This record gives sequence, structure tokens and C-alpha cells, in this order.
Amino acid sequence: MNSKRKKSGIIIIGDEILSGRTKDTNSNFIINNLSKKGVDVEEVSVIKDEEPEIIKKVKEFSLKFDFVFTTGGIGPTHDDITALSISKAFNLVYEINIAAKKQLKKHYNKPGELTEARLKMAYMPRGSNLINNPVSFAPGFNIKNIFVFPGVPQIMESMFLEFIDSITENRSIPQVSISTTLSEGVIATFIGQIQKENIDVKIGSYPYFKDGDFGVTLVIKCESDIDLRNVSKKIFSYLSKLNGNPKYL
Amino acid sequence: MNSKRKKSGIIIIGDEILSGRTKDTNSNFIINNLSKKGVDVEEVSVIKDEEPEIIKKVKEFSLKFDFVFTTGGIGPTHDDITALSISKAFNLVYEINIAAKKQLKKHYNKPGELTEARLKMAYMPRGSNLINNPVSFAPGFNIKNIFVFPGVPQIMESMFLEFIDSITENRSIPQVSISTTLSEGVIATFIGQIQKENIDVKIGSYPYFKDGDFGVTLVIKCESDIDLRNVSKKIFSYLSKLNGNPKYL
Repeated sequence: MNSKRKKSGIIIIGDEILSGRTKDTNSNFIINNLSKKGVDVEEVSVIKDEEPEIIKKVKEFSLKFDFVFTTGGIGPTHDDITALSISKAFNLVYEINIAAKKQLKKHYNKPGELTEARLKMAYMPRGSNLINNPVSFAPGFNIKNIFVFPGVPQIMESMFLEFIDSITENRSIPQVSISTTLSEGVIATFIGQIQKENIDVKIGSYPYFKDGDFGVTLVIKCESDIDLRNVSKKIFSYLSKLNGNPKYL
Repeated sequence: MNSKRKKSGIIIIGDEILSGRTKDTNSNFIINNLSKKGVDVEEVSVIKDEEPEIIKKVKEFSLKFDFVFTTGGIGPTHDDITALSISKAFNLVYEINIAAKKQLKKHYNKPGELTEARLKMAYMPRGSNLINNPVSFAPGFNIKNIFVFPGVPQIMESMFLEFIDSITENRSIPQVSISTTLSEGVIATFIGQIQKENIDVKIGSYPYFKDGDFGVTLVIKCESDIDLRNVSKKIFSYLSKLNGNPKYL
């Protein structure tokens, strides 16, 4: 394992996920896009729109990870309490951000359009940097190592893609995937042995069931290309010997 | 809010989710099926296949919630460490469960089929109750307030549906959904006021974007049917007055 890779956590804030009403797609989107930049996600937490929960989780994740990403709770309604809760988590003043207000004013430029409720979206912890919102103009923000995005997937996704380029690293861990028609019960002992002998390599074993067919996909990851190739070859030839129809995916 | 409703947490154990390789569908499935039985989910946590992480999260959730559901990490491979980790979390002996072994033997009944790796699936904390597996016969288990399921959705789902009938309560909170073509910024102040005046009612506000159209869906929940109807009527007539095309969904 390379200790230089950055570690991150994701906090999904939203009663609508915990009630089952909405499926969370944000965490998978963030994970995949961080992975391309060499940032690992170590934990995802889905919590309610409740101040004590948000404060506790933000504090915990801020200490635990290099980066923390939150989605949800930064709109104009009464249940949007993410910015206030994060201010409280770090004992920072919760106040109107002048640049954010300017962006909202540009968008809501007809008389009466920038309602008190919409103006709420310009409130955030003092010292925040804005995260641009190309869709609906209400910005996200960054304070300390916390990056705050809205919950609506269409908006979050376009903001995240624009934002992600500001993270400079751009590499993923080399990996090889091999499928086999053998089952986990047959190959587990051998794979466990290989894993033990190669601690720098990480082998994941994932059973699949598709169109009445079943088997296992092995995902082998390693920073070193040479080790990755060696271990993959060993596994492939073992599976061949057992007539397990191994295939590189 | 009714304090008698049971609260639960879900722990999704699996590197494959945190690497983005697999989308977690298990938490949404569990949430929806618990909700039908009157059990609320308060938190979902997605963590890595790592012993210290599993131990910590299981202990925390066990204290925090009435019920805890875990998925993942109970197969036959080296990275399946959920049962061992839960044993350690509660200082219980990790040992072969005779009834579980019997079930495996019945299924893997040809010579050599019940490999050492497969037999691992019969190991669990001493004192566990089995959770039946109608698909692949490797049972899940229950120890204290923890309910342990596999990660493969097809298997987890059929096990969960069979299991869920053993939870006796069977009621969901009455709710009403109203859609409007107005935006959150316009209605937020009124809705916030209504929420303040009716603390037993829980109003969620969810913007939608569909086929170029947009608006808000309000989800109003309340144990009391009368309060629910009153608040819903007030909101509906407010939205009508503003020409917001309200619709009961």
C-alpha cells in the first residue's frame, strides 16, 4: 500500500435517503471520480437532517480523513441545515458570504426574486471558499478539509466534475480483473494463500450471478506493475489448471 | 414523533462499494422493507473489509440502535471477516455452529465438496441464531441486536424477505406527498412557518428536475391522521393561491 494516497470520507445528509424515498447515487459518483484522481474513499455515512448528527459526523470525519465531502442540506428550505451545522462544528460564525450573495443576485435579478429563503443559500461558515455551481448558481463551499455539495444529483454532479480538476493528483492504482466459472468455495484457500504471501497486493473476491450463470471475479490491485503481473499470472494459471475458464476482463 | 418506533442502523461492509466497482443497492432494499414494518433507519455506514473498522462500527451501532443490520463479508474467502470481527467486538468465542454446518453438509453433499473454505461459512460467534438462506444455504446469523446478511444482493434480498416476517410490528407512518411547479425559494418561508407551528408533523422538501420540468415535492408525515390532513390542506391551498399547480401524489 502506498501511504501517500489521500484518504477521504463522504457524508450523505438526507432524510429522503434514510426513508427509502430516494436512492443515493451521489456517493458512487463521488467515489468513481475521486478514484480517477488517486483519492481513496474509506467510509460513507448516510445521516439524518439533524444538527447534532451533522456536527458529530463532520467533526469525526474531519479528523479521520484528508478530505471530507458532504452532499445535501444546502438549499433554501427549513430542513437545509448543513451550513449552519458545519459552522457550529468548527465554532465559526455563520454569516452571509458576499461573493455567494453576488452570484445569487446575478441569477435572481428580477424584483422580489431573491427571496429571504433563497438568500439563505449565501449563508455559510466565515472563511469559506466557494465551489462554483454552473447549473443553479447557489454555490457549494469549502471550509477546512470539508467540501460541501448540494444533494440533487444533476446539480451535484456538474459541480463536482468542475471542482475535481482543482485536485492535482491524477492516477489510479493499477489493477487486473480475472473472472472464473469456479466458485469461491473451491478457490478461496489458494487465493487466501497468495494474499498472505503478497501483502502489497490487494485481492478482492466477488461472486457474480448473471443470466443463470455464476462464478467469481477477482480484482487484483497493486502499486507495483511487476508484482501485479506476477500475482495475476499465478492466479490465472491456477484457475486454468482447475479448468476454471479464467478470463482477463 | 412516536418514541415507540424502533430505530435501526445499517452497516454495509465491502471494499467493492468503496472502490466504486459495485453500487450499494442493499441499504435501500433494507430501508424500504424495514419501513413497511414500522422500523426507522437512522444511519447507514459503508466501511472497508477491515477488522478494526468492523469491530468499532458494530459496537457503536449496537449501543445506538434497537436493531443493526450488516451486509457483506460472510462468504468463504480470505476477505470475509465479518463473523470473526463481530465475535471480537463482543468478546465471544468464534466457533463452528453445528446447525449451520449441518445445513452446509446437506447442500454440499458430494465427496470433497464441503471444502475447508466453505466450512468457514459455518463459523460465527457462540450463541448466534441462524438466519435461513433459501438460495445458497450458507446461513446468516443474529447475535445480540446484530443481524448479519451476505452482500450479494440476490441472496441478501431473499433472506431478508423471509426474515422480516419474524419482526412483528407492521405499520408505516401515515404520509401525504404534494407536488408543485413552484420552486423551493418561493415556498420555503411559508413551509418553514408551517413546520414550526406543527412540531409533530415532519415536512420534507425535495426539488425535482424531470424532462426539462422542475418543481418541488413535499412529503408530509405524521402519526396523527387528523394533524396530517390539516397541515396537508393548508399547504395545498397555499400552493393553489400562488398558482403552483399542487397535486396530491
